[in-house]
This record gives sequence, structure tokens and C-alpha cells, in this order.
Amino acid sequence: MHRTEADSIDLLRARTSVKWRTYADDVLPLPVAEMDYPLAEPIARALHRAVDRSDTGYSSLAPAVAEAFQGFAARRFGWEPDPARVTCTADVSMGIVEVLRQAVAPGDRVIVTSPIYPPFFDLVTEAGGVVDEVPLLGGIRDGWSFDLPGIEAAFARGARAMLLCNPHNPTGWVPSRAQLEAIAELAAAHGATVVSDEVHGPLSQPATPYTPFLTVSDAAREHGVAVTAATKAFNIAGLKTALIVTASERGDRLREAMPYEVAWRMSHFGAVATVAAFAEGGHWLDGVLGSLDDNRRLLADLLEEDLPGVGYRVPDATYLAWLDLTALGWGDDPAETALERARVALVSGPTFGAQVGRGHARLNFACSPEMLAEAIARLADARASGDGR
Amino acid sequence: MHRTEADSIDLLRARTSVKWRTYADDVLPLPVAEMDYPLAEPIARALHRAVDRSDTGYSSLAPAVAEAFQGFAARRFGWEPDPARVTCTADVSMGIVEVLRQAVAPGDRVIVTSPIYPPFFDLVTEAGGVVDEVPLLGGIRDGWSFDLPGIEAAFARGARAMLLCNPHNPTGWVPSRAQLEAIAELAAAHGATVVSDEVHGPLSQPATPYTPFLTVSDAAREHGVAVTAATKAFNIAGLKTALIVTASERGDRLREAMPYEVAWRMSHFGAVATVAAFAEGGHWLDGVLGSLDDNRRLLADLLEEDLPGVGYRVPDATYLAWLDLTALGWGDDPAETALERARVALVSGPTFGAQVGRGHARLNFACSPEMLAEAIARLADARASGDGR
Repeated sequence: MHRTEADSIDLLRARTSVKWRTYADDVLPLPVAEMDYPLAEPIARALHRAVDRSDTGYSSLAPAVAEAFQGFAARRFGWEPDPARVTCTADVSMGIVEVLRQAVAPGDRVIVTSPIYPPFFDLVTEAGGVVDEVPLLGGIRDGWSFDLPGIEAAFARGARAMLLCNPHNPTGWVPSRAQLEAIAELAAAHGATVVSDEVHGPLSQPATPYTPFLTVSDAAREHGVAVTAATKAFNIAGLKTALIVTASERGDRLREAMPYEVAWRMSHFGAVATVAAFAEGGHWLDGVLGSLDDNRRLLADLLEEDLPGVGYRVPDATYLAWLDLTALGWGDDPAETALERARVALVSGPTFGAQVGRGHARLNFACSPEMLAEAIARLADARASGDGR
Repeated sequence: MHRTEADSIDLLRARTSVKWRTYADDVLPLPVAEMDYPLAEPIARALHRAVDRSDTGYSSLAPAVAEAFQGFAARRFGWEPDPARVTCTADVSMGIVEVLRQAVAPGDRVIVTSPIYPPFFDLVTEAGGVVDEVPLLGGIRDGWSFDLPGIEAAFARGARAMLLCNPHNPTGWVPSRAQLEAIAELAAAHGATVVSDEVHGPLSQPATPYTPFLTVSDAAREHGVAVTAATKAFNIAGLKTALIVTASERGDRLREAMPYEVAWRMSHFGAVATVAAFAEGGHWLDGVLGSLDDNRRLLADLLEEDLPGVGYRVPDATYLAWLDLTALGWGDDPAETALERARVALVSGPTFGAQVGRGHARLNFACSPEMLAEAIARLADARASGDGR
């Protein structure tokens, strides 16, 4: 497997995205989900050409996005979603909100499985729902699983939908097909809807491929809606194109009940980039997966050597590491201390779930191996100096 | 005043936006609000550079957008909005929906002044409101005005908000300061909110400058929220950046009550383009205004010569012509006949209001003078051939 190298620090500091403009120059930014690799050449070429032809009006490319996704999903996941069952919108979060608005009534409960991508809490509320938190079972030592009895109980007490994160953010866990089948059965038994965020699917490592929810069973197709995008795997989150995918008449009714304007919110440049990514970005993505494979293992070595006692499970997907930093003695929110004393920016663990995130933080390792090593060295230094206080 | 020339038909047909990909090649597309001019050079340069530095992550540029807008508004409208009172989002329609969600409760009435940009009807519904249509007074012959007694009656019967379109789409009318002041007073008297869509503001002609709603009075600042963007004036609707602007503590509370995620929905490339447009696009925009000034007058001449009896009032702003085509005898929706028999695509009049739009259509004249002449010639031919049936 070939490798894609991260951009130089000078190039990275020229970026105007959140990762590179939120912190002072002496901070190593490993928080928000952006990657430090250069843009895939087919995407860059497609965007340059769109600028050159002044192609900046309302997008007509939703069908092209859906067709490019079908090909990509077929090649990489063995899944052939029907392009006629895709509605595009601006981003995965918007897609989730709009599906939830149709799937639940104001005040209905929606299951989220913490630790979980923090906006999930906000998106449920934005759609008028109430969060019903059912934490994952297991943990960093033994791996994770869904709490199926807990989820069943939540449906039984009235939850009308579940927000699935597949693969899972922040843990990088890839749920098994059997677990997804079980969730589909539970949703079907209670007439509920499963909204599956699959934006990290293309970032599952080849040895642990993710399972698209809509492929697991008829119950999943009947009760599931997938929301996905090229944005995470190809680092184009700022370009704003996402896909809402269904695979049954029930799903179609949810999708088609969304307001007319939702589909107009996709960005045209996002669509241009997404078509290029799905159709021509595979080689680049393989290189990124190779580099991420190196980094996820390097991180294990670095932690073992420099920060013994820190909990970390090598993720099967994503470029995110869910770290148990309790051993550092930095309190409930160690990201604060990491920023202050190590000048390393991580994402605060408790934002992924107040209880389950205590003492944890999320680290983004889509950077150069050198930067990753430097970050862990800084954390180790901060621990050492803190111990001496 | 210099002129900006439209792109050649070959370049235009290479675009993948809605205007150029919705119709067969033998159709002249003069419907959806896109312009045929080349992208402003500062915008093209900024976008190329963003691609070159792989700058495609989450946007950090909302403050830069707000500051660039402040400068642009000060130079062109004598208005200095406070950048701290701006929230960015993806597009004007989303901004309107999100403000309305805060300003009205489900089932509340919202005033719209037809004929009006068709999505206004959908946006009110999407936000949970009910449309209260108060048609404009006057018309093509004498010019338009707001029906102030009608608006007062609507507020009195419970309307909690009004959607203002300033300048007005489809008529190209620029409401007077006195009319805007009166609306602000009525809203204040009834504790209601005025959401002012000002996306066409930069396209008001120098002789008839538009008045930003938030500049007219304390009542307007207290009860108004402006939603605007660079997208119409600079033809970057597909890039997805808009601004929600307030000027009072009441306005701030509405803006700040919006869900956290709303501000993350702005596209980064939209922001890059918007900053370039507002900061460096003035010269290009002056050229476009010159070309549109030529075309709005040319259209009057063409209609007088080739299509006598068609109603048209030279607009004070925008590149939109609201045509009364009743004289052609093409029924309630003459755009259908125009497409079928003249191979000219217009926007259907009744979509701007079922009653007031009858017999009308909207024509987009942001094209070359040659294309405009050809479109009118085709319509005239279709009329002549139809008369002979």
C-alpha cells in the first residue's frame, strides 16, 4: 500500500480552516476532524476547472453525486445504493436533522450511544427530540459493543429513532454486521427509525471493512436511512455536500417528506469535488489509509513508550484516537491541561458524553508522523513537569 | 461606467449549474437567477489559491466575511453593520428559515407581499408558519408599493413576522425609505419581527440605491433582522455563504437563540469567495451594473418593437424583469407556452403568487444583449405563428 504524505507545516499554516486558525502558533492542533494531507489531485483539478468556467451557480449535480457514490460504494463496500433514492444536502449534520424532523415528533426520544460525536446531542435537540443516552458497553481494553438490551429498553420506553455512528466516532470502532442486524430488528419491532451516519465508512481499514447499515437486512432497509458524504475521507468538510440514502418505500417517504429547499442547500463546489472524489479519488484514498495505518500503530508505540498508563485502542477506522488520560491525573477534562501545559489541542472528552467522557480526550492523528511524535512528547513532558509540582 | 461582457455561448454551455443544464440545447435559458458574466477575477484568484493550499476544511472565516461585508456596505450603502452582530450560514433561504423558527411559533402567520420569490412560501411553511399573503399595490404601469393598511390588518389578526424582499424579487422594485419606516412602525406596534432579504441590494442601480432595512429607524433595528449574501450580485449562489445581521439586543437574542450548528453550515469556499467579492469585487460589480443598465433599457425597446402589449416596468434593481404577458393570450402560465413554442425558458408567474402571478412570467436579463434580443424575437415569432392558428 502506498502512502500519502502530510503537507509541510508552512503549507498547513497557510490554510484558513478551523484546525489551523483556532490556536496560537505554538500549539500543535490535533482536534477538529481535518486531515493534513494535500487535496487529492482529481479534486483539485475539478475545482480549478469549475473556477475557470465560472461555474458557480445553483448546482445541477445531485444526480451526478448520487451516481458517483453508487460506483464508489460498489467498488469499496460491495453496496449498490440506488441513485434515485438519494437526496443531497449541505452536510451530514443537516441531513441528520432533516431526517429526524420527519422521523420524530417534538418531544420524542432519540437514542444516542455515547461516547459520541458531540453534535449528535445538538442535532437531536434541533430536530425537536430529546436525547436518550445509551452508552456503549465495553471500552478501550476489551473493545466496544452496543448495549442491545439498553437500546431495546429505550425503544420500549418510547424512543422513536436511533442515531447510529457507523463507523463510530470517537472510538474508531467498526460495529459488526450482527450488531447492526440486531439494531435493525429492534427498530423494526418498535416501528422506529435508524439514522446511520456513515461519513467515516471510506476510512475503515481494509482488514476491518465497515458494513453499510442498509445492506444488513430487510429490516434495516425498511427502518434505516443512511447519511454520508465524501467530506471526511477526502478532507472536504468545508465544501458542503452530503447524501441522504434510503432503500425502501418507508425510507423514501421520510426522504421525500423533507422540505423542497433541503436539496437546494448542497454547495455546487462541494458536488464538483464529491463527484471527483468518488469517481477518481480511490488511489489517493488508499494512500491516506496507508498513512493512517502507520500512524495508528505509531501512536500505540509512542504511548507505550512515553505515556504508559494512557488507555488507547488501535481504531479499525477513522483517524481518531479515543484516549483515556485518567492516569495523567489531569482531572475530568484533560484536554484543558493538554492545551495549557503541553500546547497540544485535543477535543474535550466530556463533550462526547458527560459521564463516559470523563478523563478522556479525542486525538486526530491525520498528521505527519513527526507531528504525532512531537505531540506525544509534549504531553509526556507536561506530565513529567506536572508530577514535579 | 464600464461594462462586463457575458461569456460566449460555448463557455456557458460548459457550466454545470442549473441555468445551463436544465433545458435542451435549443432552449435559451432565462429563468433561474444566475448571471452569464465571467466570475470576478479577485474571486477566481482566491478560489484557485484555496485549492492550491488544500484549504478545504471547516471554515474559520465567518469573522472575515462579516468584516468584509461591513466595508462593502459602508462603501456602497453608507451602512456600517457591526461584524459582532453577524451570524453566517449556508444561504439566504436557510437564514430566513432559521430566523423565522425563532421569531414565530408553529401555526403563527407570516406576511409575504406577492408577487414574491416563490421559495418564500415554502420557507414560511418549513419554519412552521402559515403564509399570510398581502399583495403589493400598484403594478407594472404605475409602480409598486406596500399595502400598509393590509399589512397592519395582518399584524392585527395575529401575524408575528413579515418577510420583506428588499429590493423586491421579481419586480426589481426598490422600496422607499418611507415605506420601510412605516413597516418598521407597524411591526413595532405589534411586537412582530421583520426578516429582510437583501440579497439583491448590491444590484440596485446607482440612481436608485436600495435602503438597508436596519438603517431606517430604531424600530427597524429593534424589530428587524437582515439576511444577505454576495451570492446574487457576484453570481456565486452555488458556493453557499450568507449573513444574518442584527442591530439591537432584541435582534441579537433571535440570532443567538439559533442552534449552534447553523453557523457551521457555511461553506468554506463560499466564505473565501465572499470575502474576495466584498473586499475586491467592486470594480467588477460596477461593470455588471453597467451591462444590466444597458439590458434593462434594451429589453424595453425590444418589447415595444417586437411584443407590443406586453407589460414591463424597467426595474430599479436586480436583473429580473416581471412581464405581464396577458396580451399574448397564452393563458394563466405563459412560461409554458414560451418554452414549448418559443424555446425560451422563463420562470412561471403563478409560482410568485397564484392570483397576482396569473398571465405573468419572470425573465432574467443577465445575459448578452444578443441573447436577450434573440429571446424576444423568438417570443414574437411564437406569438405570430400562434395568431395564425
